[in-house]
Amino acid sequence: MGLRTLEEYVSSLQDDRAVYILGEKVEDVTTDPMLEIGVKTAGIDYRMGEMDDFRDLATVTTDSGEAISRYYYVPKDSEDLLKRHELMVTATRLGGGVIPFTKDVGSDAMNAVSIVANIMGKSEYLERAEEYRRHLQKNDLSVACAMTDVKGDRGKHPSSPEQAHPDYYVRVVDRDDKGIVVRGAKVHITAAPYCNEILVLPCRNLSQADADYAVSFAVDAGAEGVVQICHPMDRGPGALEFPVDMPWRMHTDSLIIFDDVFVPWERVFLCGEYDAALHLVYNFAYIHRHTAASYRIPMSEAMLGMAYAIAKYNGVLRYAHVRKKLVEIMIYVDTLKSMANASCINAVVHGGLPIPNPKLSNIAKYHFANNYHNCVKALQDIAGGIVVTGPTYKDYMNPEEKPYIDKYLGGTADVSTEDRLRMLQLIRRVFASDLGGYSEILALHAEGSLAAQELMVFGESLAEAEEYQKMAEMAAGIQVDTPPTLPEYEKVYKALREMRD
Amino acid sequence: MGLRTLEEYVSSLQDDRAVYILGEKVEDVTTDPMLEIGVKTAGIDYRMGEMDDFRDLATVTTDSGEAISRYYYVPKDSEDLLKRHELMVTATRLGGGVIPFTKDVGSDAMNAVSIVANIMGKSEYLERAEEYRRHLQKNDLSVACAMTDVKGDRGKHPSSPEQAHPDYYVRVVDRDDKGIVVRGAKVHITAAPYCNEILVLPCRNLSQADADYAVSFAVDAGAEGVVQICHPMDRGPGALEFPVDMPWRMHTDSLIIFDDVFVPWERVFLCGEYDAALHLVYNFAYIHRHTAASYRIPMSEAMLGMAYAIAKYNGVLRYAHVRKKLVEIMIYVDTLKSMANASCINAVVHGGLPIPNPKLSNIAKYHFANNYHNCVKALQDIAGGIVVTGPTYKDYMNPEEKPYIDKYLGGTADVSTEDRLRMLQLIRRVFASDLGGYSEILALHAEGSLAAQELMVFGESLAEAEEYQKMAEMAAGIQVDTPPTLPEYEKVYKALREMRD
Amino acid sequence: MGLRTLEEYVSSLQDDRAVYILGEKVEDVTTDPMLEIGVKTAGIDYRMGEMDDFRDLATVTTDSGEAISRYYYVPKDSEDLLKRHELMVTATRLGGGVIPFTKDVGSDAMNAVSIVANIMGKSEYLERAEEYRRHLQKNDLSVACAMTDVKGDRGKHPSSPEQAHPDYYVRVVDRDDKGIVVRGAKVHITAAPYCNEILVLPCRNLSQADADYAVSFAVDAGAEGVVQICHPMDRGPGALEFPVDMPWRMHTDSLIIFDDVFVPWERVFLCGEYDAALHLVYNFAYIHRHTAASYRIPMSEAMLGMAYAIAKYNGVLRYAHVRKKLVEIMIYVDTLKSMANASCINAVVHGGLPIPNPKLSNIAKYHFANNYHNCVKALQDIAGGIVVTGPTYKDYMNPEEKPYIDKYLGGTADVSTEDRLRMLQLIRRVFASDLGGYSEILALHAEGSLAAQELMVFGESLAEAEEYQKMAEMAAGIQVDTPPTLPEYEKVYKALREMRD
Amino acid sequence: MGLRTLEEYVSSLQDDRAVYILGEKVEDVTTDPMLEIGVKTAGIDYRMGEMDDFRDLATVTTDSGEAISRYYYVPKDSEDLLKRHELMVTATRLGGGVIPFTKDVGSDAMNAVSIVANIMGKSEYLERAEEYRRHLQKNDLSVACAMTDVKGDRGKHPSSPEQAHPDYYVRVVDRDDKGIVVRGAKVHITAAPYCNEILVLPCRNLSQADADYAVSFAVDAGAEGVVQICHPMDRGPGALEFPVDMPWRMHTDSLIIFDDVFVPWERVFLCGEYDAALHLVYNFAYIHRHTAASYRIPMSEAMLGMAYAIAKYNGVLRYAHVRKKLVEIMIYVDTLKSMANASCINAVVHGGLPIPNPKLSNIAKYHFANNYHNCVKALQDIAGGIVVTGPTYKDYMNPEEKPYIDKYLGGTADVSTEDRLRMLQLIRRVFASDLGGYSEILALHAEGSLAAQELMVFGESLAEAEEYQKMAEMAAGIQVDTPPTLPEYEKVYKALREMRD
Repeated sequence: MGLRTLEEYVSSLQDDRAVYILGEKVEDVTTDPMLEIGVKTAGIDYRMGEMDDFRDLATVTTDSGEAISRYYYVPKDSEDLLKRHELMVTATRLGGGVIPFTKDVGSDAMNAVSIVANIMGKSEYLERAEEYRRHLQKNDLSVACAMTDVKGDRGKHPSSPEQAHPDYYVRVVDRDDKGIVVRGAKVHITAAPYCNEILVLPCRNLSQADADYAVSFAVDAGAEGVVQICHPMDRGPGALEFPVDMPWRMHTDSLIIFDDVFVPWERVFLCGEYDAALHLVYNFAYIHRHTAASYRIPMSEAMLGMAYAIAKYNGVLRYAHVRKKLVEIMIYVDTLKSMANASCINAVVHGGLPIPNPKLSNIAKYHFANNYHNCVKALQDIAGGIVVTGPTYKDYMNPEEKPYIDKYLGGTADVSTEDRLRMLQLIRRVFASDLGGYSEILALHAEGSLAAQELMVFGESLAEAEEYQKMAEMAAGIQVDTPPTLPEYEKVYKALREMRD
Repeated sequence: MGLRTLEEYVSSLQDDRAVYILGEKVEDVTTDPMLEIGVKTAGIDYRMGEMDDFRDLATVTTDSGEAISRYYYVPKDSEDLLKRHELMVTATRLGGGVIPFTKDVGSDAMNAVSIVANIMGKSEYLERAEEYRRHLQKNDLSVACAMTDVKGDRGKHPSSPEQAHPDYYVRVVDRDDKGIVVRGAKVHITAAPYCNEILVLPCRNLSQADADYAVSFAVDAGAEGVVQICHPMDRGPGALEFPVDMPWRMHTDSLIIFDDVFVPWERVFLCGEYDAALHLVYNFAYIHRHTAASYRIPMSEAMLGMAYAIAKYNGVLRYAHVRKKLVEIMIYVDTLKSMANASCINAVVHGGLPIPNPKLSNIAKYHFANNYHNCVKALQDIAGGIVVTGPTYKDYMNPEEKPYIDKYLGGTADVSTEDRLRMLQLIRRVFASDLGGYSEILALHAEGSLAAQELMVFGESLAEAEEYQKMAEMAAGIQVDTPPTLPEYEKVYKALREMRD
Repeated sequence: MGLRTLEEYVSSLQDDRAVYILGEKVEDVTTDPMLEIGVKTAGIDYRMGEMDDFRDLATVTTDSGEAISRYYYVPKDSEDLLKRHELMVTATRLGGGVIPFTKDVGSDAMNAVSIVANIMGKSEYLERAEEYRRHLQKNDLSVACAMTDVKGDRGKHPSSPEQAHPDYYVRVVDRDDKGIVVRGAKVHITAAPYCNEILVLPCRNLSQADADYAVSFAVDAGAEGVVQICHPMDRGPGALEFPVDMPWRMHTDSLIIFDDVFVPWERVFLCGEYDAALHLVYNFAYIHRHTAASYRIPMSEAMLGMAYAIAKYNGVLRYAHVRKKLVEIMIYVDTLKSMANASCINAVVHGGLPIPNPKLSNIAKYHFANNYHNCVKALQDIAGGIVVTGPTYKDYMNPEEKPYIDKYLGGTADVSTEDRLRMLQLIRRVFASDLGGYSEILALHAEGSLAAQELMVFGESLAEAEEYQKMAEMAAGIQVDTPPTLPEYEKVYKALREMRD
Repeated sequence: MGLRTLEEYVSSLQDDRAVYILGEKVEDVTTDPMLEIGVKTAGIDYRMGEMDDFRDLATVTTDSGEAISRYYYVPKDSEDLLKRHELMVTATRLGGGVIPFTKDVGSDAMNAVSIVANIMGKSEYLERAEEYRRHLQKNDLSVACAMTDVKGDRGKHPSSPEQAHPDYYVRVVDRDDKGIVVRGAKVHITAAPYCNEILVLPCRNLSQADADYAVSFAVDAGAEGVVQICHPMDRGPGALEFPVDMPWRMHTDSLIIFDDVFVPWERVFLCGEYDAALHLVYNFAYIHRHTAASYRIPMSEAMLGMAYAIAKYNGVLRYAHVRKKLVEIMIYVDTLKSMANASCINAVVHGGLPIPNPKLSNIAKYHFANNYHNCVKALQDIAGGIVVTGPTYKDYMNPEEKPYIDKYLGGTADVSTEDRLRMLQLIRRVFASDLGGYSEILALHAEGSLAAQELMVFGESLAEAEEYQKMAEMAAGIQVDTPPTLPEYEKVYKALREMRD
């Protein structure tokens, strides 16, 4: 095959997958009034491949002359990671702040599978990973990554007898020479209802008692026993809102149940190697938090754009406290961009693959998640109460009300009342509505919680902390037995010792 | 008349007031599907007067043996303020977190009008204020306070020629021996569509050029030329949500247009005295920020209740980072309660009336507003992504989906999945939905913005700062010309001078 | 005896106590150039009893007509706690920001001992406690409380074999019918070198294996085997600083070693009852954190005084960002004061004694400790770099330099350069010097760390959180089996149930 | 000449410069007991040029084969800026956390002078700047930059009659065909007493009335009329502290008075062009804030090293709250490093010279300054009260005390008490002492205050905010008249418009 068209992608979804939304089974995800929004959002990735302005970004021509999606290209160096970063940022801009989620997360998982196959050094896993990547490349498939288990009592292990049942984490319940049978459920899986493939990873460290839970595999989204329950999506502006001629982009997230699903061995990437589970979790997280940082950039820029616009419309740009709040958002945006870039520039190699710097990716992700609510607060403060107390489009269209609204809800003289109301409506929708609440919670929980990032930053900084400790010990007059090995400290340490002798 | 029943209150609203919602004129606010929710919420105040358990709190029997609403009783001391505080807190608890808004804000404005009439010392204003209070007492009326002007360009004065028109602040456009004619609009006026009276105050300091804008008055909500445009209210759980057998409470806020409304002189409390405008603004704000702190207490307790419940349901109560986040909310709640109480205990007398301590009320209000988003973040963090990605009630009712949901979305073994989903639904509704966004913005803007409270805390702390400066100067060896006059420092200053001699 | 004079207190310290400072054994603590500063600071308590303006505050005349220190009076109610609070605040003001530490902490410990004797219900402990309090009352003694053990590896239990030795926590090493022999060391004990008595408490929860560490007792500060090692005190302004005619007040903290000290049974208040140790720790902490909040009030007021003064001297009071920083300190001060008062007003009774509200005391203490660095930052920001880069008094006295300094280091025209330099010197000393660093660390660690307060706020809020949870569950439509029992929720719960029926 | 040796630098300082410290005139700055510490600290720059390991970093061989200091090399691109960044970081590491301050700031000022000469386009200024740079290169001079005026009343303009005198900002008081005479004083000038040259810049925007204050020039540090008054330096560990065999590094900052100093025209770089003053201020600040971010990196690493070491020594590394605090410092360090790097990578060209990205440099500087106190707090929290209450080295050396100290002040079993005390001593010295206070204030004020950085971030983000506003307007359905011009948004904008058509 090769690169697919948008149409080919869409028609590939018209199978008999088991997807529920609003309590009803969906006939065809491409025509369901909610899910089709997601299909179109995901389709942006395929569309980019068709557009002259973005083809070079979205695709790569391999040495063999084959054109493939950049996501399935194996990165060689920082430059490749920066290019992939640019692809994700651009795709999100084209998605009006929503990343297509077509192959980005899926390829993060694919790369993690490759890395861990390398680390484990088992040839069958290496071959399967390689073969699966070829499959994705050749058929230009859309892949969701299903990682987060439903967990039950979060304070208990998967195999703990105190869990209400043993299926709170996906596990192998049967196996034969053809393959394995898996049971369990994954939750918060974005865009899965309109992906071709589901790539499953474990979601935590596992002990020997949990060996059946150490399982990673890929299945077709329409495979027997795979059931998806979606949460309702925001359908975009309704009758109460000013119509906007921009297409509406959004995703759903689903609960995916694996109701004794058969997986052939060639799609099994981990099965029982409980001590490799954490490698898989970590390597996916390392890579994926950079993806998160990437797609947050356009969202953050949009936040600044709205805050700045409404400050001008309201006539408050000159007030010191308003400027201070804008500066907070400005710093938020540029720190995020710089950290995400630094993460690519300072790539590290895991299992033979260059990946964005784990420490810096986690810091970038933590930065936007930890400071998000504060920026929302700054924006809401600047925008004013009118964001939520203002009249609707229907009021504006009522000729009895319109003159009052036009006259009294104006801002600075150079902006029309309608434009002010439109900007306020956008702000309400994005930062003070169902969607706003969704965004706040996603900032905290998507791609791992704040606590998860703190854990990783801690782990990833330990080696340097040890070196800094040595320098501190030398400064304290404490005997340091082994000199530092960080390149930037080796010579300094030597020079300092000479200076004191 | 005297105290009214709930029914009397409701029927009093059935006049020909001009109220719009969802772009349509409302026939009868008491039967409109949205507004009736507000009517019932407001009605809680009248209902309290009918209930044995709350009558003593909601009403006062005056020395003349007349039973009146506690709100219209003139407070004598801290005890009265604490009692009124308890009334507001209790009414809000009965409103499921929503204050009735029937007489609370209105009486804050009434008290401010009395105070400023006293300060101005003009007998006609004093008499009118007194007469109006008697009117409210005797007829047990519901009063909205309309203060915030629509403002236009917020960087410009009301009378600035750079404003697009001169009506961005309510002003007097005509007057004769009967009364005045006013024009303009007030915005964010909570509960006004189902109040009997609207009491109007100016919203900022004014210069001589702005004298026409220095106007305060009361009108019947159904008066000719008074037009209200409401924003849509949250109607409570819909078909997608688990049904809850608690009544739904909510308010709307309206844009009130004064389209050349005639006001007789006996209802005019300020007219042209531009240098008294700020007194009125400040005294209303002093009192009203305490009201805000009061009604925020049950909302904050509810936040803690939800956070604590879901931490237990999820099995995460034992984690250090979860406890830290709960502690943040715990401190938030009890600091708010202590500050609101301290404000009553340290009452000050303005224009002959005891009012909650202005400095402490502003700090209490600032405390909850400034830290609200952070507490929301803590709660969202504890609750998990499932708050927004979970299935709907309709999914739960579908027998094909229910077994999956029951099995996989359980938490700790001792809580049913349905109960967990119900708690998550409540959290989503209150902290991650349209209502959640509304609450965030109201935290920042209702009863004045953070910047407004900062301004008042600064002003109210200056006298003490001067005294502390003197003590600092003495400690620095700087000559202090006039000793401190704060009682707690007078003797200390004297003793310290003796010690050094 | 009865109340002692300042002189009697001073001469009572001239015994052969083993006190070291600066590496040398002190002959007489009342004449040692450093320690005498502490003696004079502590002496303020005795001096207050001699001054007409403060006698009523510092002492109490009991029903039997005996005059005793207010600290040793057994409080009966909130009023008594508020009076004691006022005493501590006033004494600290007289100490130029330093609390005398003469009987305050000691009486906190005395009260905790009484409470736990009551809780344990052992008559011999009750009698000993009573007898010891009489001893303190009659002889008007100064008492230090020694609580914090040196701990060794903080991650290990006292009796853990992984500790380098078994003496990292004070323990009983021998006992006979006369008394016990104790060994170990307590650290950070403020003012102990010039107290008459040392009252020792355990510092953590203990298990049965730690029974020997469950020991509480009192000894004379000069007892055999008691050795104190003090850290150097700030001696106040030196030759490089502008002379100030205010006396210098300061304390030292000592490491107290109990080198096999004999304690007669009548001074033993706990010995082996390991399960009562935590009661003692907690009740002391409950009371003492209020003491901490009390003495921090004058320090916070002083911080505001200095920030405000220098903002004026520098001519920056009108800048928005300077005002914002002042407002942060203003809110800091008044929140502290209100919380400390609320703690007394909402007293609870433990073991028969009213004590400041544990939850609110912990919040008050946490408030000042957690926000202290931020206020220091605000002050330093306002004051400017000149705080640390400015010339010394010796430069100012050099006639070649003085004209330059006078001319160029002026601020606003109405303040002399010398006064500006004096205020900057005061700020440097208190907030940017050895003493400043000491204060920062003491804010965090004195009276327990932030983590300790978080633990207590959590524990003390649990009962209320349970009640709020019930209200949340009702709002979520979840069956609540037992209705709330908090008075403020009982009636509301009943009314809400009726409303929904 | 060419590159100088350390000795040549030192002997060049032995002139008759007028320098005061501790109220006395200094005979020879190279032998004064305090100032010689600064001389040695500054000398590290010259020493680096002599060391094989650092010569390539510290110097550059120009195309003409001349070896010059890297600081005086004109950067060509990001690579050069990164190299210079590495030089400053490395020099600071060699200075034990103190940057030599020999040529770094001076060359920042030199570059700003060049840029503004270019912007002004006046050939005489261009030639003088070029000539002066040659002078610095050839003679390998050490240069201080004197920028901050003493200001008087900070709320008043330099020429305001409300200032106590007209000399609060350096100004031209006379001029003839040979040159100008300047009067005034600059403050907080680090390392100036042991520099060869002083390069003076104005410190604020100026109006026409302030034209005499628009002056920039260079003078020899020993020039007639140049008087320096230094503040006392921290001399390093004294008799009370454990001796450390690392050399002590530190600087002083001086108040430099220009007492009618003559400056020949060839060293005048601005004289009366008041509208260019702000260019000079800004371009110096743009460059210099990156310098600040550079030298803060080793200081931040050291902070992490100490916090990590003491967490281990105390046995608290496993506690969740300790890890959280370490993570805060870890994020602090790596965000600083990434931002400082990003600033070089995203260099911009001003007046023909590449300079570190102004926006990112300001964010980097703001990051470390704004979060410094919080990191200090985290470190102090982990380290414990013993940092300030512990015994001195003299106590440790007293054989009566040593056994007690050794026994009782141990931490984890694998660290000796002496090593623990040494680490605590280092922490006290750096974060809880005179030096600690100095560092806190310098974090806030050196290289400009937080408010100054906020101002610059605002200004530097405006162009992008305008673009983001356009995207927001498009999303809101508002007519955008001119499409965005940012490269990353141009194509996206076009594609989005097509998608909606």
